Amino acid sequence: MRRGAGPATVITIMTDDKLKPLREQIDAIDAQILDLLNRRARIAQEVGHVKAETNAPVFRPEREAQVLRSVAERNPGPLLAADVQTIFREVMSSCRALERRVTVAFLGPQGTFSEQAVFQQFGHAVEALACASIDEVFRATEAGSADFGVVPMENSNEGAVNRTLDLLLQTTLSISGELSIPVHHSLMTASGAMDGVQRICAHSQALAQCQGWLNQHYPNIDRLAVASNGEAARMASQDPSVAAIAGEFAGQRYGLRVVQGHVQDDPHNRTRFAVVGRLQPGPSGKDQTSLILAVPNRAGAVHSLLAPLAQHGVSMTRFESRPARLGTWEYYFYVDIEGHALDDKVAPALAALKENAAFYKLLGSYPFTL
Amino acid sequence: MRRGAGPATVITIMTDDKLKPLREQIDAIDAQILDLLNRRARIAQEVGHVKAETNAPVFRPEREAQVLRSVAERNPGPLLAADVQTIFREVMSSCRALERRVTVAFLGPQGTFSEQAVFQQFGHAVEALACASIDEVFRATEAGSADFGVVPMENSNEGAVNRTLDLLLQTTLSISGELSIPVHHSLMTASGAMDGVQRICAHSQALAQCQGWLNQHYPNIDRLAVASNGEAARMASQDPSVAAIAGEFAGQRYGLRVVQGHVQDDPHNRTRFAVVGRLQPGPSGKDQTSLILAVPNRAGAVHSLLAPLAQHGVSMTRFESRPARLGTWEYYFYVDIEGHALDDKVAPALAALKENAAFYKLLGSYPFTL
Repeated sequence: MRRGAGPATVITIMTDDKLKPLREQIDAIDAQILDLLNRRARIAQEVGHVKAETNAPVFRPEREAQVLRSVAERNPGPLLAADVQTIFREVMSSCRALERRVTVAFLGPQGTFSEQAVFQQFGHAVEALACASIDEVFRATEAGSADFGVVPMENSNEGAVNRTLDLLLQTTLSISGELSIPVHHSLMTASGAMDGVQRICAHSQALAQCQGWLNQHYPNIDRLAVASNGEAARMASQDPSVAAIAGEFAGQRYGLRVVQGHVQDDPHNRTRFAVVGRLQPGPSGKDQTSLILAVPNRAGAVHSLLAPLAQHGVSMTRFESRPARLGTWEYYFYVDIEGHALDDKVAPALAALKENAAFYKLLGSYPFTL
Repeated sequence: MRRGAGPATVITIMTDDKLKPLREQIDAIDAQILDLLNRRARIAQEVGHVKAETNAPVFRPEREAQVLRSVAERNPGPLLAADVQTIFREVMSSCRALERRVTVAFLGPQGTFSEQAVFQQFGHAVEALACASIDEVFRATEAGSADFGVVPMENSNEGAVNRTLDLLLQTTLSISGELSIPVHHSLMTASGAMDGVQRICAHSQALAQCQGWLNQHYPNIDRLAVASNGEAARMASQDPSVAAIAGEFAGQRYGLRVVQGHVQDDPHNRTRFAVVGRLQPGPSGKDQTSLILAVPNRAGAVHSLLAPLAQHGVSMTRFESRPARLGTWEYYFYVDIEGHALDDKVAPALAALKENAAFYKLLGSYPFTL
């Protein structure tokens, strides 16, 4: 007997009577799922024994990518494929942890996007090791204190990308995975209102990402590109005539208030992360390969450098040039191509690319997941 | 055919031959799990239809708590019970999202502990709504822009608790859940070394939490309690003779380097969060109830206030007094007790408590999960 049952409780009890048989069915299904999960875990333990005999790695990104693709493809619904993948990521994470908890270094502190990226890639059954800098993430992983490191590659708010790109040039580690996390821009001022605002400041990239929204809502306010969104936030905190576009993180750091959230034109704006490790994943069937290249700085050099890709029918998905700080070359080119370095089409293209380039570094081949 | 197969690849291929039959077994199990998950989802949709007829809430914390307890209790292993709960939390989150994605407001920015708390409580299939302040989390939830709000209750680093406690006093919302996230303290200095350090600064609570470790490692360095761990971090950033104990978040904000991480004596140091909403969860079988009480400030008043709890055999799990900023009373008492307000033992105890107290506010009853 429960006391104090009012009208709301009565409705709840009536509903509960109707729900009871359905919930019993769910409980029965849950019992079966629980049984299957543990059967799966026991087989995963056998997999672990086989791997231990041959010193094979606990975490095989290509295998996990295949499982996630397979469940999404075979998913009959009504569950969403993305949600099914989230569930199976945790299933694999938990099974893998019975062999050994994988340690993953990330750019701390705890409770950041980078930590979210760790869980998004490896599930929650891992040891996440917070590092004070991107350098330390690489060091911890190179030294073996961590199995993997997760580092930001492209981040419109925090500019972490440059240090990562520099360290990729030097490291002995390979890229073994890539993932992204959604990021939103907000329009912020010290007061939370737009009264008296004469300039909207942000990094040029952020201004570009928000220009449609700005044209629609504030066509008559000047826009000023500054060094970073963080700098824009700092300016707005000191000057009531300035509004900043930045991530909420920067806004909070400088005590700004949000005028309007989600002002980027593309709601799917994301921060990319790379997973680095000593492991080189095998082909998963749908892979990407990352390279760093350099050529002497003369007309047509880049064009002819890349000719082998076209010749072998290999798609280039990303090409970024970056002024060199070190070494002989004026620019390094960060290139992503479709396919695995061991793929039939890709291997000869890479061989030719290597021959053409003055500098060639294969960063790694890994499952394509973005 | 793959090209470029070196010795490492050969070992991988040999291992893969042994692993193939095991992986086929896993794939077969995954197919069954996938089927069961979608059968579960279809029944959950029927549950949704029944609920829609009676306007019953999509998210029933007591039901989800029961499912999570049940799978942990029945879990035969080898999977860890906690990992099984993580999996089932995502299963329920995904099924629930087929009825409607629950919107949860939290103290932003994205990528913080508060956002992690949202996912830990509701799984990933939710709309997480970042708010600029704790006040806004309450406002958004009271206004119905969010179904629930997640707010920090106790946080040794950031002192957010006071504002939450004030708002709980005023809000029309109920507490419908509670959860916690592990938090670590680090010893940090500007240089990352302890050379020349004469004082270790932190909030008194953090110093107390680390005293065993400090006695062992730095028994001869003075300790100074300051206003907050953030203030200690700021001091350390400006004074090389100061080391700070703080969360890595504060350390990063002030550019400190970690001398040693995880220096708290209790490795299970956690930040508590409350889930607030318009919903009042029914009894789950293992619940907790939160109250705010006040009495006139005279000798013995608190003692006699609490007498009904003892009389009815109700355990008090938390008792915190807090100087009142508003209203008639000098102190408010934040009290947690075991059990649900509708439980046989608890209901008469609360009735008597209400009679004794000069101020009585029932914050809510919700599943106990800590």
